[in-house]
Amino acid sequence: MQIKNPPLIFQVVGYKNSGKTTLMERLISYLSSKELQVGTLKHHGHGGEPASVKETDSSKHLQAGSSISAVQGERELHITVKDTTSFELDELLQFYTVLPLDILLIEGYKKADYPKIVILKDEKDMALLELSNIIAVGCWNEVLAENSDYYTFPLQKTEENLPALIACMVGRQLNEN
Amino acid sequence: MQIKNPPLIFQVVGYKNSGKTTLMERLISYLSSKELQVGTLKHHGHGGEPASVKETDSSKHLQAGSSISAVQGERELHITVKDTTSFELDELLQFYTVLPLDILLIEGYKKADYPKIVILKDEKDMALLELSNIIAVGCWNEVLAENSDYYTFPLQKTEENLPALIACMVGRQLNEN
Repeated sequence: MQIKNPPLIFQVVGYKNSGKTTLMERLISYLSSKELQVGTLKHHGHGGEPASVKETDSSKHLQAGSSISAVQGERELHITVKDTTSFELDELLQFYTVLPLDILLIEGYKKADYPKIVILKDEKDMALLELSNIIAVGCWNEVLAENSDYYTFPLQKTEENLPALIACMVGRQLNEN
Repeated sequence: MQIKNPPLIFQVVGYKNSGKTTLMERLISYLSSKELQVGTLKHHGHGGEPASVKETDSSKHLQAGSSISAVQGERELHITVKDTTSFELDELLQFYTVLPLDILLIEGYKKADYPKIVILKDEKDMALLELSNIIAVGCWNEVLAENSDYYTFPLQKTEENLPALIACMVGRQLNEN
């Protein structure tokens, strides 16, 4: 194992229940089927914590006062970090430098400035087109992106548009580097 | 937030059900009550995985093929890393460099070479005294460590021995640095 070059980083943003996680899954499956190492980060949003691991030795460590606690099992490593509200996104991304990733996909974090795919579900989502660094737009209704200058694809047909979408994502970043 | 000097690293080792997690909890509580930033790592041992977070978006990302997936909630960050069996302990410890920790406590990983507290429960545990870099011995039966050259404390009285134990741990490392 060794640290590769920093991975290419992309975001998938959209309002709640617009289909972000499904698009993430499609992208991850496609990229990892091409033997690329993919990492992902998701913002859980407001109103609660991600499903936590309760009553484990790791949670005992955390309750006793540790700031970061991890458990290594036979196949997976689980790490929990407390009090991350003050962390900037770039600080969180430092956890990903330990692995030799090719691509890092971020679900959410609208205000971050990484190249992003925006999901438009209906008219009221159009404000998302004001976000920075948009490289592609996924639409549930193609009328929404009719006058868009971005690469646009219908979310009903994500599967068949994946190669073109990824070419658009990667081409854009390679041009910038 | 900034990266401090590397934290002092200690291990707590002992056979199954010898009281490792309880000693870890006591150490974490004491150290964090002194305003020290503590991180912890535990080896789950064989025969299963740590309690996992199922049916979450993070697990969806992992199932789709990502190597590392994280979810940031309002208070906690949960990171899951797949296929860590090939990781050396030192590679796992890289995840801890992101936080400004003072002390990193490792539960298990007997064969690692960090300064360690060994727990002796009964006669058959004496083989643990052959491990490298022992700095203290916690005993359920004081007869077990009668002829030991190490700092020894009875695990029935961990609480009152904590200040001396920690002085022994930290003093040892400071002398070496």
